[in-house]
Amino acid sequence: MALAVSSSLMLSNLQAFAAAAASRVYEPTLLAYGSTADYSSPGRDVPCSHASSSFPKLSLLRKTVPLRLGCACGSPELSSVHDTGPHSFTGMKYPLEDVLEAQQFDRQLMSGIFQVAEQMEEVERNSAGGNLLRGYLMATLFYEPSTRTRLSFESAMKRLGGEVLTTENAREFSSAAKGETLEDTIRTVEGYSDIIVLRHFESGAARRAAAAARIPVINAGDGPGQHPTQALLDVYTIQREIGRLDNIKVGLVGDLANGRTVRSLAYLLAKYDGVKIYFVAPDVVKMKDDIKDYLTSRGVDWEESSDLMEVASKCDVVYQTRIQRERFGDKIDLYNKARGKYIVDKNVLSVLQKHAVILHPLPRLDEITLDVDVDPRAAYFRQAQNGLFIRMALLKLLLCGW
Amino acid sequence: MALAVSSSLMLSNLQAFAAAAASRVYEPTLLAYGSTADYSSPGRDVPCSHASSSFPKLSLLRKTVPLRLGCACGSPELSSVHDTGPHSFTGMKYPLEDVLEAQQFDRQLMSGIFQVAEQMEEVERNSAGGNLLRGYLMATLFYEPSTRTRLSFESAMKRLGGEVLTTENAREFSSAAKGETLEDTIRTVEGYSDIIVLRHFESGAARRAAAAARIPVINAGDGPGQHPTQALLDVYTIQREIGRLDNIKVGLVGDLANGRTVRSLAYLLAKYDGVKIYFVAPDVVKMKDDIKDYLTSRGVDWEESSDLMEVASKCDVVYQTRIQRERFGDKIDLYNKARGKYIVDKNVLSVLQKHAVILHPLPRLDEITLDVDVDPRAAYFRQAQNGLFIRMALLKLLLCGW
Amino acid sequence: MALAVSSSLMLSNLQAFAAAAASRVYEPTLLAYGSTADYSSPGRDVPCSHASSSFPKLSLLRKTVPLRLGCACGSPELSSVHDTGPHSFTGMKYPLEDVLEAQQFDRQLMSGIFQVAEQMEEVERNSAGGNLLRGYLMATLFYEPSTRTRLSFESAMKRLGGEVLTTENAREFSSAAKGETLEDTIRTVEGYSDIIVLRHFESGAARRAAAAARIPVINAGDGPGQHPTQALLDVYTIQREIGRLDNIKVGLVGDLANGRTVRSLAYLLAKYDGVKIYFVAPDVVKMKDDIKDYLTSRGVDWEESSDLMEVASKCDVVYQTRIQRERFGDKIDLYNKARGKYIVDKNVLSVLQKHAVILHPLPRLDEITLDVDVDPRAAYFRQAQNGLFIRMALLKLLLCGW
Repeated sequence: MALAVSSSLMLSNLQAFAAAAASRVYEPTLLAYGSTADYSSPGRDVPCSHASSSFPKLSLLRKTVPLRLGCACGSPELSSVHDTGPHSFTGMKYPLEDVLEAQQFDRQLMSGIFQVAEQMEEVERNSAGGNLLRGYLMATLFYEPSTRTRLSFESAMKRLGGEVLTTENAREFSSAAKGETLEDTIRTVEGYSDIIVLRHFESGAARRAAAAARIPVINAGDGPGQHPTQALLDVYTIQREIGRLDNIKVGLVGDLANGRTVRSLAYLLAKYDGVKIYFVAPDVVKMKDDIKDYLTSRGVDWEESSDLMEVASKCDVVYQTRIQRERFGDKIDLYNKARGKYIVDKNVLSVLQKHAVILHPLPRLDEITLDVDVDPRAAYFRQAQNGLFIRMALLKLLLCGW
Repeated sequence: MALAVSSSLMLSNLQAFAAAAASRVYEPTLLAYGSTADYSSPGRDVPCSHASSSFPKLSLLRKTVPLRLGCACGSPELSSVHDTGPHSFTGMKYPLEDVLEAQQFDRQLMSGIFQVAEQMEEVERNSAGGNLLRGYLMATLFYEPSTRTRLSFESAMKRLGGEVLTTENAREFSSAAKGETLEDTIRTVEGYSDIIVLRHFESGAARRAAAAARIPVINAGDGPGQHPTQALLDVYTIQREIGRLDNIKVGLVGDLANGRTVRSLAYLLAKYDGVKIYFVAPDVVKMKDDIKDYLTSRGVDWEESSDLMEVASKCDVVYQTRIQRERFGDKIDLYNKARGKYIVDKNVLSVLQKHAVILHPLPRLDEITLDVDVDPRAAYFRQAQNGLFIRMALLKLLLCGW
Repeated sequence: MALAVSSSLMLSNLQAFAAAAASRVYEPTLLAYGSTADYSSPGRDVPCSHASSSFPKLSLLRKTVPLRLGCACGSPELSSVHDTGPHSFTGMKYPLEDVLEAQQFDRQLMSGIFQVAEQMEEVERNSAGGNLLRGYLMATLFYEPSTRTRLSFESAMKRLGGEVLTTENAREFSSAAKGETLEDTIRTVEGYSDIIVLRHFESGAARRAAAAARIPVINAGDGPGQHPTQALLDVYTIQREIGRLDNIKVGLVGDLANGRTVRSLAYLLAKYDGVKIYFVAPDVVKMKDDIKDYLTSRGVDWEESSDLMEVASKCDVVYQTRIQRERFGDKIDLYNKARGKYIVDKNVLSVLQKHAVILHPLPRLDEITLDVDVDPRAAYFRQAQNGLFIRMALLKLLLCGW
């Protein structure tokens, strides 16, 4: 049974939709991205220009998505979502245009996104608002496989009533194999869809795609570069599990040299007050200086430790990561040594505080033992599901606004 | 135009939905599966404990799927489906929780499923009930390709108004390639969907997945193990084509040693009375003793024959199968000899009774000649479509109950 | 919010639907296809037998798709689409049954399709009619990858409210790899869907599929054979950009020997009056004699030229194509020489008339320089999007009729 209203009510809503669509505009991107993206560089940490309230010049408007008839963007059904939005974001003043990199997000914006994500938990649970994005079409353009991330985005879109065009392995396929540029592919795919979720093997690809596209682009990971929705879901999970983001102690464990997620997480945590970060990594994959320097420049307290038990006993969050075999080439010895060094097991649990949690970006090999899974402090599968809520929130914000 | 009701009616229905959702529970699995699955072992043939009508203990409840707003599970539109359900299955007394192996199904359960499958034929034909599973999301997790089976499940879900997340080749992709366990993958994917359809290359994988999952799992084939929906559609096709399952004569032809389908079919036919089975197979791929012993133990009459014409003249059903080249390695001579031995052609049709049918699980090579296709007794493409109705019925039962 | 009407109105509409469904029939295929398809042969250019208005004999009826409840085929919402259809096509007199090859289309049929395509632009833009094909299921059966074409078809179906079963790489997968014939695959897939979009590596595959199927088949490219929807979108783009199809000058540039699109375009343009065609190709990939002879036989004026600048200055349309490296094997020298010969760049733009346009079937390598993209006469991305509207129109016509 479809949710329905009487036809007279419906018509008046449609008129409201049409009026909203006619007046719908986007402001320019919140952050002016530099041509070389180095998100660990302090100089890149430009605060959002939220002070500006003047209407943007027409020449600056870039992204436009038509309001789809049948979607519930302006529907009273979702008034609760709209009403509880942070006041500073209402009225389309600070629209989100693309999601490209962790640097886009300051405390205020994250707080707004997290509020929407919590509402999305409700939507997912009882299907209210399941027609929020009806009529919208998302293209998942994946140049390298990432089944987990792809399914998470596609579930998010479908839970909101939207539809999906999917490409699991765009790299091997057709046009790209014939030498077409990413920009040309984007200009074609934008003719078929309302929003593009891009996974690419090259750093900076998402930014190039967003520059070429007239519709919103979400970066679902571009090589060694950025994976901003993972970074957001990690921070969101800490807020959901611990209840706050200020005054927390976080232990980052495992492959800190190559792990995109721990680098982004450290970067984003630096936006909060009273954060203490512990780095616990085998020597060959220690956290690099750029992030350490950045934390220092932001006044964040950090230290390195080789004692996982001691760190675990102090922390609110232990964020474990996989040692990535693919980074070691044929140095199997080195890999095996690094891999076995810091394992989260029952012993770690035994010193962990009652309110603390274990996180992991997954997939997990044996760096967290299976017997940890049943402990309520094992939060990594809840963390994976938070990815759904964050992606629902971002799709909602990019297509419907605040 | 969406099917709709006046808003007042709708609201009262929503209240009914909410009430139903609140009281909705699942009983524990019908059959207690042993740790080693040998479905040909007589000892495994435990009857369903349908006598129990007491409310299950909370600790035994496992699978729960939230009732999705907008679905038509409790809608009067489908009252006919609900009203004609077998009385013994109403009231959520014997819910289906997972579909894992042929041993789950006794006569009574199959009879109930087949009644729902017949209703699904109507749904598919005229789209009534096409919103039965609106708001539900099925994940097809295929670790080996099986386009036919995958499309059949996805069509079933979409014909019922549900949505699909699809993975065509999960084995090569991302997390599994990095060494993630099936259980971890399942725990992640269950966060994105309401039901998982699993195809895997390892026997027992579906059972492991079901044990890990909080949502229903359907086994769409796990290696040399089980393919229970194929087994059900074969039995269903016999009932639809012949009109009964008791007192039938069935000839199983072709590769009986390696054919998962013929083994399951023989097993399930043993649950009916007065069944006679003929085995017609090249020497190298004869039916194995475990099934023969099982049939004998159940009092089923069977015999082996090398005369396809004589068997065809006596049978209600001739079930032809493909000789699987992949089982012969480099013994091409042996393969070619086996392959050409028993062909269903015009000669076989000439002795086949008028009411009898030819079945085949497909794909077919040349073991049934093309000129047989136009004969109304060639039922193999109808059989393939029955797979759709059976899968629609199972999805309906797993997500909506009886 | 779903578009809805009061339940009494709905019921009367459903009755109308049912009546329409009961009386719904298809006439036999417009064109009797020969057994060998050579679309450049004049003898193949059989005009449509539009004179016949008698009811077809039952034995000639082939394709039937049930009217799906919930679709808007007969809905007043789309009355504008129905009312503005060309009078000669109304009343199901000349239904489209399959889309197989360019020879199917004469001026009148193209004119009708183009009118529907223009209406589809409106549908795509404001989502009205987004439930036109609700309840219908399209199977995209791709035996070779073509992401661009696949996404275009899938977007078309979803923009109209229909659903999609998708197979990205049917060739490597399951049944085909086991030796199943295309016909058997089609007979199975037609049980799961309402329309099949086929991409195949063998010329003639679409025709074989259509002969086997009881549901409509669209050829999305069959090897070196046909790609009729590309041909239609090229002609449609010329009409949309130039405003007419009679009395135009068209320059075909690049690989004219192997390019399926330029051959089909030349063929279809021959149906219009006063057309002049210029062939501009490197020596190794010149237009073949069959097309030249066909144009001559139809009285179409054509000439070959090696002066792209002069041709560009005269033409309404410059249709550039990619030199296909894969055709040159290891003759890299020859390829590089051919590739660099005729490039559309700022110099070409400088002589191009103001109303003229540059087209390209895409993907593009460097045969059009990037600085051309910003010129409003660069129409190739609009051309790509026209593919969406043409495919929406064809899906609408094949499933709902005129």
